[in-house]
Amino acid sequence: MSDIEQYMTQVGRQARGAARAMSRAATAAKDAALRAIAAAIEAQQAELLEANNKDMQAGRDDGLDAALLDRLELNEARIAGMAEGLRQIAALPDPVGGISDLSYRPSGIQVGKMRVPLGVLGIIYESRPNVTADAAGLALKSGNAAILRGGSEALHSNQAIARCVHAGLEKAGLPAAAVQVLETVDRAAVGKLITMPEYVDVIIPRGGKGLIERISAEARVPVIKHLHGVCHVYLDDEADLEKAIQIAFNAKTHRYGVCNAMETLLVAEGIAERVLPELSGMYLEKGVELRGCQTTCRLVPAAKPATQEDWDTEYLAPILSIRVVKDVDEAIDHIAAHSSSHTESIVTENYTRARRFLREVDSSSVMVNASTRFADGFEYGLGAEIGISTDKFHVRGPVGLEGLTSQKYVVLGEGQIRQ
Amino acid sequence: MSDIEQYMTQVGRQARGAARAMSRAATAAKDAALRAIAAAIEAQQAELLEANNKDMQAGRDDGLDAALLDRLELNEARIAGMAEGLRQIAALPDPVGGISDLSYRPSGIQVGKMRVPLGVLGIIYESRPNVTADAAGLALKSGNAAILRGGSEALHSNQAIARCVHAGLEKAGLPAAAVQVLETVDRAAVGKLITMPEYVDVIIPRGGKGLIERISAEARVPVIKHLHGVCHVYLDDEADLEKAIQIAFNAKTHRYGVCNAMETLLVAEGIAERVLPELSGMYLEKGVELRGCQTTCRLVPAAKPATQEDWDTEYLAPILSIRVVKDVDEAIDHIAAHSSSHTESIVTENYTRARRFLREVDSSSVMVNASTRFADGFEYGLGAEIGISTDKFHVRGPVGLEGLTSQKYVVLGEGQIRQ
Repeated sequence: MSDIEQYMTQVGRQARGAARAMSRAATAAKDAALRAIAAAIEAQQAELLEANNKDMQAGRDDGLDAALLDRLELNEARIAGMAEGLRQIAALPDPVGGISDLSYRPSGIQVGKMRVPLGVLGIIYESRPNVTADAAGLALKSGNAAILRGGSEALHSNQAIARCVHAGLEKAGLPAAAVQVLETVDRAAVGKLITMPEYVDVIIPRGGKGLIERISAEARVPVIKHLHGVCHVYLDDEADLEKAIQIAFNAKTHRYGVCNAMETLLVAEGIAERVLPELSGMYLEKGVELRGCQTTCRLVPAAKPATQEDWDTEYLAPILSIRVVKDVDEAIDHIAAHSSSHTESIVTENYTRARRFLREVDSSSVMVNASTRFADGFEYGLGAEIGISTDKFHVRGPVGLEGLTSQKYVVLGEGQIRQ
Repeated sequence: MSDIEQYMTQVGRQARGAARAMSRAATAAKDAALRAIAAAIEAQQAELLEANNKDMQAGRDDGLDAALLDRLELNEARIAGMAEGLRQIAALPDPVGGISDLSYRPSGIQVGKMRVPLGVLGIIYESRPNVTADAAGLALKSGNAAILRGGSEALHSNQAIARCVHAGLEKAGLPAAAVQVLETVDRAAVGKLITMPEYVDVIIPRGGKGLIERISAEARVPVIKHLHGVCHVYLDDEADLEKAIQIAFNAKTHRYGVCNAMETLLVAEGIAERVLPELSGMYLEKGVELRGCQTTCRLVPAAKPATQEDWDTEYLAPILSIRVVKDVDEAIDHIAAHSSSHTESIVTENYTRARRFLREVDSSSVMVNASTRFADGFEYGLGAEIGISTDKFHVRGPVGLEGLTSQKYVVLGEGQIRQ
């Protein structure tokens, strides 16, 4: 066994042991740990900034681009944000141990479901060091142990945050091994992490599409993955035009580089002439490049013709593809063919079409008369999220504390035996 | 592409198309299909028996053992059972489309979760042809499409049942491709089925440990698996002795070859002398071989010494391993080390220990004062089950209609945009 395999086996064994202690930890102890970690992060601000400075310097020396350096940077506001996020997680209800659907059966036994932690989470992420605190907090509150593998460029920052996490866990009497941040940047560590089902129950990759596809292909444990967001807004011909324009504008321009931004606008032909000229003027003024179908290009002279590829592209940029469709059926068909099953929204006042869109569109979030930008754990009231699952299995959409748990059956009897 | 790959790709494409139609099928249409399939199965009894007769003859020629031949056999009672099972599924509530937790958020949007089908199920099973009808029924009612791969020894029987399924689907106006029973016995078909995530959303293997381990190792789609059941009963020293003896006897001897039968009995040392002599007499009279720890062998002279391997063995036979433990802590530790996380039961009148056992034992079913034999979809009120998941991911324990669905977020707004 190589050194890295030995190291990972030890990490895995410690995590498995800690997971058992975490699964039965009292809510008060977990909340105390979260608040102690928040306090440690605030108290260690100088050390965190110093560690981050090393990473930033190395990043500049390595020629990281401005966007990456921005994600890598910790400053006073971001450190305060990490502490605040942990206190918010402490304030959320504890999902573990909740029993639902407890009911009597004809045999006399009472059957229900108890919410339980998944066990050991393997979380793999890139650059942003504040994910270390967020992920540790969500894992801890949901009663799981976690093995965190951050980006190599953030190694010093992540280790400094890890020290705060361990101090907080120990202060609350919980095992420090409940959250382990890998101390190696060897890529073989990831290879081992995703192929040791005896120690790891689920892998959660956060990062670019390349990372996630590689991990999904090679993992031998379940993966909760967030692939990409080709999100659609459909403006129905029975839409309230003012709402239609506001939602379509907000969904594209509120932020460009996010997975819940709209990438394709579908417009019913019955309102295209009334909506597209005004809306495209707003987009163009904002600097959004428009790529459209034939009808769109006729109505919006500034739009370029869209290629077949455009309908499947997540731009993450001020670019929008626009297609005029006949009706809600053609919109649903377009979405079925091109969506990444992340988030889609219909704007309509028509009751039946709203209901059909909600039922028939197979995406992790389906909306009526709201901007796709609302697809987010905080906006949904989950308190925090570890990612947005574009899978259907286990959990779909924003993944909060509940998504990091499972349910087991509990049976309460008075001596019942099978006849 | 080989012929078999081409065939499987076509099957997959048809299933994906049918899945979309099934996901929006009305409850009434699905129930009508289930009842029409039941009627077809009854009407085609002679044809089913004739097809089964071919399989039985081939099985005898191939030298299948008596147990396998018994599982393979269809008779009038089993055919009636299939039809009855389908009518029971028709009578269950439709899980699809149910919306829960719909609540307003500070932004004014209303957020909830809608239950949706998983999509396409790939179900791989052995010998028993009635699984074809059960699996088709559960897939259909939960709004999924299914690709079924039965055992090669049951090919004629399964094809005959498939004809009834298709007749019923068509009668109800649903696509026949919603349930496809593979017409090939080529093992390469399974290899392709478990590695085409573009067409298959989840694999459910039912069969021996070897089959399930091979599929889990090679699958490139999620697997809901039922590995094995090393189930424990712990008799606490504050147990009601009468209940303790009845439950321990029932859990082992009600049926031997089932996954929820007890394989290891744990007895608190405080009651071992009062319980073990009487209980072991009952077991021995029933022909159960006893293998025990040192203390057990002292109290029960007929018991052989258990080896280390015994504590991890699923006998599926009239054999029981018995260990005397100090207390509930040692029982929970033994279970954590040796259980397959299927089903465990504590017999006690002590409130605190019952609560601790329920919370701390990490199994798909955890019981107090009830026989492990109750771990079953029918007994739990699921109506039917497609298997018992020993995984924690997605679903744990008996998997009924709800386990074959996921939840997506739905957002209802009046024009809200992100600020």
